[in-house]
Amino acid sequence: MAKEITPRAENYSQWYNDIVKKAGLADNSAVRGCMVIKPLGYGIWENMKAQLDSMFKATGHVNAYFPLFIPKSFLSKEAEHVEGFAKECAVITHHRLMNNPNGPGVVVDPSARLEEELVVRPTSETIIWNTYKDWIQSYRDLPLLINQWANVVRWEMRTRPFLRTAEFLWQEGHTAHATKQEAEEEAATIHEVYARFAEDYMAMPVIKGAKTPNERFAGAEETYTIEALMQDGKALQAGTSHFLGQNFAKAFDVKYADQNNKEEYVWATSWGVSTRLVGGLVMTHSDDEGLVIPPRLAPTQVVIVPIPKPNAQIMEVAEKISNQLRAKGISVKIDNDKKKRPGFKFAQYEMEGVPVRIGIGMRDLEKQVVEVARRDTKEKSYVAIDGIDRYVEELLVDIQNSLFSKAKKYRDDHISEAKSIDELKDILDNKGGFVKALWDGTTETELKVKELTKATIRCIDSTDSLGEGQDIQSGAPAKQTVYYAKAY
Amino acid sequence: MAKEITPRAENYSQWYNDIVKKAGLADNSAVRGCMVIKPLGYGIWENMKAQLDSMFKATGHVNAYFPLFIPKSFLSKEAEHVEGFAKECAVITHHRLMNNPNGPGVVVDPSARLEEELVVRPTSETIIWNTYKDWIQSYRDLPLLINQWANVVRWEMRTRPFLRTAEFLWQEGHTAHATKQEAEEEAATIHEVYARFAEDYMAMPVIKGAKTPNERFAGAEETYTIEALMQDGKALQAGTSHFLGQNFAKAFDVKYADQNNKEEYVWATSWGVSTRLVGGLVMTHSDDEGLVIPPRLAPTQVVIVPIPKPNAQIMEVAEKISNQLRAKGISVKIDNDKKKRPGFKFAQYEMEGVPVRIGIGMRDLEKQVVEVARRDTKEKSYVAIDGIDRYVEELLVDIQNSLFSKAKKYRDDHISEAKSIDELKDILDNKGGFVKALWDGTTETELKVKELTKATIRCIDSTDSLGEGQDIQSGAPAKQTVYYAKAY
Repeated sequence: MAKEITPRAENYSQWYNDIVKKAGLADNSAVRGCMVIKPLGYGIWENMKAQLDSMFKATGHVNAYFPLFIPKSFLSKEAEHVEGFAKECAVITHHRLMNNPNGPGVVVDPSARLEEELVVRPTSETIIWNTYKDWIQSYRDLPLLINQWANVVRWEMRTRPFLRTAEFLWQEGHTAHATKQEAEEEAATIHEVYARFAEDYMAMPVIKGAKTPNERFAGAEETYTIEALMQDGKALQAGTSHFLGQNFAKAFDVKYADQNNKEEYVWATSWGVSTRLVGGLVMTHSDDEGLVIPPRLAPTQVVIVPIPKPNAQIMEVAEKISNQLRAKGISVKIDNDKKKRPGFKFAQYEMEGVPVRIGIGMRDLEKQVVEVARRDTKEKSYVAIDGIDRYVEELLVDIQNSLFSKAKKYRDDHISEAKSIDELKDILDNKGGFVKALWDGTTETELKVKELTKATIRCIDSTDSLGEGQDIQSGAPAKQTVYYAKAY
Repeated sequence: MAKEITPRAENYSQWYNDIVKKAGLADNSAVRGCMVIKPLGYGIWENMKAQLDSMFKATGHVNAYFPLFIPKSFLSKEAEHVEGFAKECAVITHHRLMNNPNGPGVVVDPSARLEEELVVRPTSETIIWNTYKDWIQSYRDLPLLINQWANVVRWEMRTRPFLRTAEFLWQEGHTAHATKQEAEEEAATIHEVYARFAEDYMAMPVIKGAKTPNERFAGAEETYTIEALMQDGKALQAGTSHFLGQNFAKAFDVKYADQNNKEEYVWATSWGVSTRLVGGLVMTHSDDEGLVIPPRLAPTQVVIVPIPKPNAQIMEVAEKISNQLRAKGISVKIDNDKKKRPGFKFAQYEMEGVPVRIGIGMRDLEKQVVEVARRDTKEKSYVAIDGIDRYVEELLVDIQNSLFSKAKKYRDDHISEAKSIDELKDILDNKGGFVKALWDGTTETELKVKELTKATIRCIDSTDSLGEGQDIQSGAPAKQTVYYAKAY
């Protein structure tokens, strides 16, 4: 099985596609740019959802659901938003099919044309702010802290499973506040939640920072991002949190009466992460043998394989261990399929990234031990059955921490500094990763560097760690440190 | 607040709309037929989802996700399915908007016309069976037990919040099996899961049975349904499970090689429940003062209200009680909003259907008691703070059981028998509810009765409890007992 995966060193892009396919994360579909998320891929997303959802709720948010469709005219109400989102999208023009009068099949019924076309939401600011207009009258109605789990569609030309698809699953938070300060704090809180989730659950280290004006969300006054590093040295934008100012409140005329009955426009944020995170998880940890999943997000954390085949005695021990592990909240699968050999099963679970595999054989049972293999390092050891639950519990924590440490070391080893545009180009071409450099703060320079190097500014370093000096491209005075990288 | 609700006796339909609006379950949206599900309505749906999802997983199912869009041609591949689903639906014809060359705003880019139109899924059998074709080769790939949580769109002409909306949320299970018997058992298993969920969690008694051929899902060989009774005497179809035979396997050419390497078409089921269940829950239990939510599905099970206002002493007791209840897995909210009076809060939580309200006042604290009010019967009692957690835990169970008993008594009192079409008409007009009668098994008779009474056959009585005799309409020999009712 493992043989079927292209090694990373040979072709990183093909390696990723191979993992997605062979591990059973996703499949292509009959619809251009839309993928089918298979049970394993969806299981990882479900675990991500559950964790993020509890973090949103712990910070005071509730879920709601807004329509899939947006009237075409809504998209052009906010001046910048229209440029960013009212272009490549799925447009509904009719509401009926009819039997083909000239042959088999069905055709669009020309008489069922919509008065106003609808667009499948590419993001929901417009439909939500049109709704908030009815929900917000007074300061008593604020803050409004709402999140939505939904599918969205952006008609992308070039798609890749999880990383960029026409339809994707995501959450989008949309909050409304009485003051600018409160909205800014909200955007910062979520930025922090995203970073914590990425590091503590995905074991994926991230750089936190603000986007440049040119890279901001269309309609935002500030965009905060978490940026991760993939094993090919390219950055992945993994989650963004936007301070929207009063832009959408003004576009949709959403005002509230304050304590003195004075009317003010409402302040807003929006923020989202998507199934793209599944792609980020795959690219951060997996190896040439297949998928590697951090234990905290693994749909199956432990698999138990009878060797060579299940029998009554082995199954009794397997059930006992499995019950002990489940009592500790660990998800376990016993593979008692008699049609497949242990070697085949080992290869399968390695490919699928199950963090811990326990093999139970008759000879081991005589010694009251089982074989425990960890997916990340592929180390095996014989462990006494007595106390195996505590051993596995600690092992899962160790695997989670090891994955993070390894990814962090790789990431830290791939943060460089460039003092000139040539140096930046050299690092990007030969080493990859993030490159810190001084920036003069202009979009002009930013775009010029992109043209020369294909790298973009992933975010601004909030500590401005390189001090003051000259921009590496323009030579103009510069006091902001930014992270350049090639990105997905 | 309560005054704003139209009494059921005056106008049942308006009563329902009032509850949905005043309790904050859902709102109309700017898009025709699509609702906004507000946090309370969505919270109920989230609890339904969590419970159903765990029941599906306990019966061996996993989740996956398939595309929102279906190529137009897919809908016409299964002969009966096309009639049922390829008509009123959202049709995507273009993939781009452009700036209006003749004025402000955006217009459809005529050059971005799709080669083949896409339809927003009204249900996913076609796209899923087109995918299963790639997933199923051998008996080893079976059974495939997959569920999807998704949004679907059916362009309904007349919509009502939750009960019938253009877009709705649902789950749809799609399973593939090697044998007819296994597929039939699967459809029966899910039928039983749905009934158990409705009765044990929604506290909504249901009649289980098969649909008549005329009322079957388009493309099914057998449709099993659970039918509930609303307080106006009308039935609500609450969940259906379909045995699809080999219809979709043949339409999409899905075959498997059996143990002898002989190729066979795969057997299928599909099954679904939707946000319609939220409407059913509202209509089953609520009263003229507002929403009533069964404790097992209530987003907030207990609310604690300081009387008249929060102070340090009251808040200390409130926190203590709340921690004790949370330790028992009970969801609690402390309302320490100083801007609202207790009377206002009481009315609000009554409207929102919070099962248990605890009032804490200074005078009660001296006696070491609190006031506990249950939403269903509106009974109040003073309960010692010591042991309050056990009291509330039992009270929630009691409320859950009482709601079911009350609904079941109402339902049982509204199951009648008719020996003639006149008697059927009389019962339907004057009493409502389910009416058992003998049926000759023909669609002709079924449609004639519908024309005469507006009632439909909700399901066939699996026990044929009325024995043999004559059809109440045609007079022809009849040996099937059916349940007639007017329905949503």
